[in-house]
Amino acid sequence: MADTQHVLDAPPEPRVGIYDEDGYLAEDFLDRVKEAIAAEDAAFLRETIGPLHESELGDVLRNLGHDERQALVRLMGEEFDYTALTEVDEAIRLSIVDAMPNEQVAEALRELDSDDAVYILEDMEEEDRKEILAKLPFRERLRLRRSLEYPEESAGRRMQTEFVAVPPYWTVGQTIDYMRDEEDLPESFAQIFVVDPTFKLLGAVDLDRILRTRRPAKIEEIMHETRHAIPAETDQEEAAQIIEQYDLLSAAVVDETERLVGVLTIDDVIDIVQQEAEEDIRRMGGVGDEEISDTVVTAARSRFLWLLVNLATAILASLVIGLFDASIQQMVALAVLMPIVASMGGNAGTQTMTVTVRALASRDLDIYNAGRIVRREVMIGLLNGALFAIVIGIVAAVWFSSVSLGEVIAIAMIFNMLAAALAGILIPLVLDHFGADPAIASGTFVTTVTDVVGFFAFLGLASWWFSI
Amino acid sequence: MADTQHVLDAPPEPRVGIYDEDGYLAEDFLDRVKEAIAAEDAAFLRETIGPLHESELGDVLRNLGHDERQALVRLMGEEFDYTALTEVDEAIRLSIVDAMPNEQVAEALRELDSDDAVYILEDMEEEDRKEILAKLPFRERLRLRRSLEYPEESAGRRMQTEFVAVPPYWTVGQTIDYMRDEEDLPESFAQIFVVDPTFKLLGAVDLDRILRTRRPAKIEEIMHETRHAIPAETDQEEAAQIIEQYDLLSAAVVDETERLVGVLTIDDVIDIVQQEAEEDIRRMGGVGDEEISDTVVTAARSRFLWLLVNLATAILASLVIGLFDASIQQMVALAVLMPIVASMGGNAGTQTMTVTVRALASRDLDIYNAGRIVRREVMIGLLNGALFAIVIGIVAAVWFSSVSLGEVIAIAMIFNMLAAALAGILIPLVLDHFGADPAIASGTFVTTVTDVVGFFAFLGLASWWFSI
Repeated sequence: MADTQHVLDAPPEPRVGIYDEDGYLAEDFLDRVKEAIAAEDAAFLRETIGPLHESELGDVLRNLGHDERQALVRLMGEEFDYTALTEVDEAIRLSIVDAMPNEQVAEALRELDSDDAVYILEDMEEEDRKEILAKLPFRERLRLRRSLEYPEESAGRRMQTEFVAVPPYWTVGQTIDYMRDEEDLPESFAQIFVVDPTFKLLGAVDLDRILRTRRPAKIEEIMHETRHAIPAETDQEEAAQIIEQYDLLSAAVVDETERLVGVLTIDDVIDIVQQEAEEDIRRMGGVGDEEISDTVVTAARSRFLWLLVNLATAILASLVIGLFDASIQQMVALAVLMPIVASMGGNAGTQTMTVTVRALASRDLDIYNAGRIVRREVMIGLLNGALFAIVIGIVAAVWFSSVSLGEVIAIAMIFNMLAAALAGILIPLVLDHFGADPAIASGTFVTTVTDVVGFFAFLGLASWWFSI
Repeated sequence: MADTQHVLDAPPEPRVGIYDEDGYLAEDFLDRVKEAIAAEDAAFLRETIGPLHESELGDVLRNLGHDERQALVRLMGEEFDYTALTEVDEAIRLSIVDAMPNEQVAEALRELDSDDAVYILEDMEEEDRKEILAKLPFRERLRLRRSLEYPEESAGRRMQTEFVAVPPYWTVGQTIDYMRDEEDLPESFAQIFVVDPTFKLLGAVDLDRILRTRRPAKIEEIMHETRHAIPAETDQEEAAQIIEQYDLLSAAVVDETERLVGVLTIDDVIDIVQQEAEEDIRRMGGVGDEEISDTVVTAARSRFLWLLVNLATAILASLVIGLFDASIQQMVALAVLMPIVASMGGNAGTQTMTVTVRALASRDLDIYNAGRIVRREVMIGLLNGALFAIVIGIVAAVWFSSVSLGEVIAIAMIFNMLAAALAGILIPLVLDHFGADPAIASGTFVTTVTDVVGFFAFLGLASWWFSI
């Protein structure tokens, strides 16, 4: 979110005072702010907080209590930089915005870039959003409404509707003069767009290209075709991938008639890249979209579902053990050793799955090399399986003074490591093939396979070997 | 890696032909390339591959066999864009570079930006690197050597040494004229730096600021102080965080005497952000720095260590079970049910750990709110623990027709979910406190706790309850 590089208006204060050497907010700084809030010392707060960068203010908000946040906004009045709301998570953002009268929210949004305003509006209640939009001037209302009409997490939602566009027949000189005279330019920009009278996108020119070119040259001579214009409905992840792959500083966003409607900048891409990596990590960890500021009940509910799935798979594994209850009763060493085979398989399967999910995400894994990668994982599984079979075979043989038991667990280990390799790669591949996110649920499915195969191989082999 | 936005020299070909609708390399395109390589059809390859963007060429290389890659480089000769080597992983990069004579590598590096050249040089054998550097012209050799002297993964390694710097007393007009006349400018840039005669950094000006300002204005009047200059020794992750936090398009890199030595651009930051997220995911999955193109033995070895740690913890869990072998022999249902308690704890612990590790990485979790977050996790653990205690209690009571057994497993479940919550948050916090990466090893430690507590609570309670 936020503008690219408006360091120009940046505070004269050194960054040092706010953060400690570990990069956390300095304790004494935060204490002083809290004291000032308690003492309602508006002058001190305006002077200290006013010049902070939006991300620094975001860090301050995150470290204040609920009431302190609202008091800070109230005390700072017009000096409060609402862009900071794009730097905190949804729960904190809403706790601040919901406490403000809609009148005041509308006033605050007018000061923001359109993408930041949309970011704040999109989480609000439908009714509040309508009321706030109605209070905005016609042109701004139109722009924000258009952005909000695009689907969530689309390029249209994330784009900034402020940009510079010129006709192709202008000269470099005319363009520079225009930028020197025009008051209403975006706060910062890295390229200008070239459009026809209907705003159809013709091309773009980077600012360094304009600065290198002599005044009489025509814009159309130095512009490049924008091969990477992004339709507004495009998913934000896909849009980010285009900007990232082609190392663009910004990309034009166009509507269905190819007219320029906004610009997606690279700082948005960083946010998107982080958000998507975050999603993968959370899904592999089985914690959905939870944020650390969510309430206990919200968080518990979002985790409940995955635990329930896990309970079902754990019961399945227990059913497998139940098949061999007679064997266990005769030879209790089986009960002692059986979690080892299952646990090693679970870990090896998770390793393979992690590599597979990331290779799918970065497109390093596709139909051309899937066969090779499957063979590779099978080889790794067999190799490590053989090594650990020897280790655990010796441990079990010595522990229970039974060479046969060592042999049984060794063979079961190889079986399960092989099953782990196959499950770790095939389950994400199949989920991906059917359009599901391979990160979600892979973990539970993989460990189900390794638990079931692990218990079955070990207990089954033992029953057969010892004829019990 | 790679320049920001040199779309200017981009291919006229539409992107459509190379990729299929899922964003993978199109099968027929790849087949045609492979045929041309087999037929040694250099003309076709130069025409088809030559105009590709470096990232597109990287995708092609990734999908070719080892010999095909080398043949492609040979057949394309000077038309081969070596920047593409920064788009593929280390194993592929080295397989291409090692097959080339050092003479030719030196020739190729001269065409690259300094950061891309360093990226290729840093992975090579010491001896080859020296020989290649010796073949470069004095100025380039000096620049590359300086970059290579900075530590791995530092800002100095990742910086580009090409930049535009002007004195503060120049006017906007002089600066524009200079850029129009000078031939030797970087391929693209988003800001110019202001330096004194000894190259000490005084400030920076964004290009849009220059374009908005009239010719007579002095640079020093419109420059902003660069509060965020990055010392070259800074770790790349920290450097990326600064650029990201302050939404900069690029940041000056300075040496210990505060002289400007290079520039770190935002496209490098995206690579770094992705690399660091990737590292976290891999570490949580227990697969170190493995890449999908690593050989079987390399990959197996890197995973072996974590599996060995896991084996030790699994044996620890078995020892706990061994304490209760008499009870299991009398009541085999205990062996059937015991993995359920351990598995649920393991999953709940992983959920908490995932949230904790990410909150630490994004600095949402620090000493101010640690107490609150621990309480929150304990509450979630107790809540979900109580819910699943009821479910599994009923299941066990019905399955084995024993209300007492249901009561025992229910109480053990609550115990273990509480242990999972505490382990999931405290282990990463402690690792972080002692300067270790909380992502690494947290998983194994957390599941060790939940296995040991799970087995001990369930079997111990059962032994006491049924007096066996």
